[in-house]
Amino acid sequence: MRRRARSPPAEVWGKIGASSCGDAPMSEADRPGMPFPTAFELDPRLVADTHRIGDLALSRVLLFDDARFPWLVLVPRLPGLRDLIDLARDDQHRLLDEVNRCAHVLHALDRPHKLNIAALGNVVAQLHVHVIARYPHDAAWPRPVWNVGERRPFAAPALQERLAALRTALRLEAAG
Amino acid sequence: MRRRARSPPAEVWGKIGASSCGDAPMSEADRPGMPFPTAFELDPRLVADTHRIGDLALSRVLLFDDARFPWLVLVPRLPGLRDLIDLARDDQHRLLDEVNRCAHVLHALDRPHKLNIAALGNVVAQLHVHVIARYPHDAAWPRPVWNVGERRPFAAPALQERLAALRTALRLEAAG
Repeated sequence: MRRRARSPPAEVWGKIGASSCGDAPMSEADRPGMPFPTAFELDPRLVADTHRIGDLALSRVLLFDDARFPWLVLVPRLPGLRDLIDLARDDQHRLLDEVNRCAHVLHALDRPHKLNIAALGNVVAQLHVHVIARYPHDAAWPRPVWNVGERRPFAAPALQERLAALRTALRLEAAG
Repeated sequence: MRRRARSPPAEVWGKIGASSCGDAPMSEADRPGMPFPTAFELDPRLVADTHRIGDLALSRVLLFDDARFPWLVLVPRLPGLRDLIDLARDDQHRLLDEVNRCAHVLHALDRPHKLNIAALGNVVAQLHVHVIARYPHDAAWPRPVWNVGERRPFAAPALQERLAALRTALRLEAAG
């Protein structure tokens, strides 16, 4: 069973000066008022803003419900994650492999000019990674997509078509 | 010698439907007017906006010259990279290890509320990854940092102090 990383792996962090990077994990005392969850649960704002595509080995893959941008969101299905550094190294690599897979799918389906990949989480603290196809003619270019104009939810037929195409490309079955 | 990834590694991409993800690499014909460089060279806008901290095994690590945010930028020192998917899988993992290392250093030095990690590249197309420490009281919160207000360059003494602290934490010598 996977668990939250408690300290950086020695092979990566052994080179960091002890004076600047303690081994102590983030304790719950550092985050008052945030009880440590025991099971994965998707943040309600992510539920509200996305459609579920399906689950890869580590991540739930979501379609962000904004037809202006080809936009996927990956959420590692482990409890209590806020930042990338909360993941153990193997899971970080697994997450990156899944991000890469989603990026290739957007590249194949949508032929973007550029890919934007980001884990921000200032509004929704739960660790999640955006993978977004960008074009010089899109609604936000060259700025990042966040906080630009109004989200334009998919119309029903276009949504089903898009979800089907993404599930085929990702080899995922429809979520139950 | 490392070279640009020509196709996704089979162990990752074999699962993707052939109909949606061709194996063909991005060819130079897809990017007219962008000659393929043969040696790593830092984009002049990154040179102008940052100070060099030093080089890790794969990436050049830069301090973004904006005293409002603790902000590092990693640039893999390989020619011709635009997007994460241009890197071979091993180098993607290496880059993530270095991003993780920088994130731990910012976490240890600056105790942020949240870490923002992003590869956007809409303005500077060269592949680069931002690692930014964020706080509820910072100049952009909760929005992303890009395009918010005016960059505030470091004053000389604070800059030298900051570069020294980061080099110590990252175990890097001063760049020549």
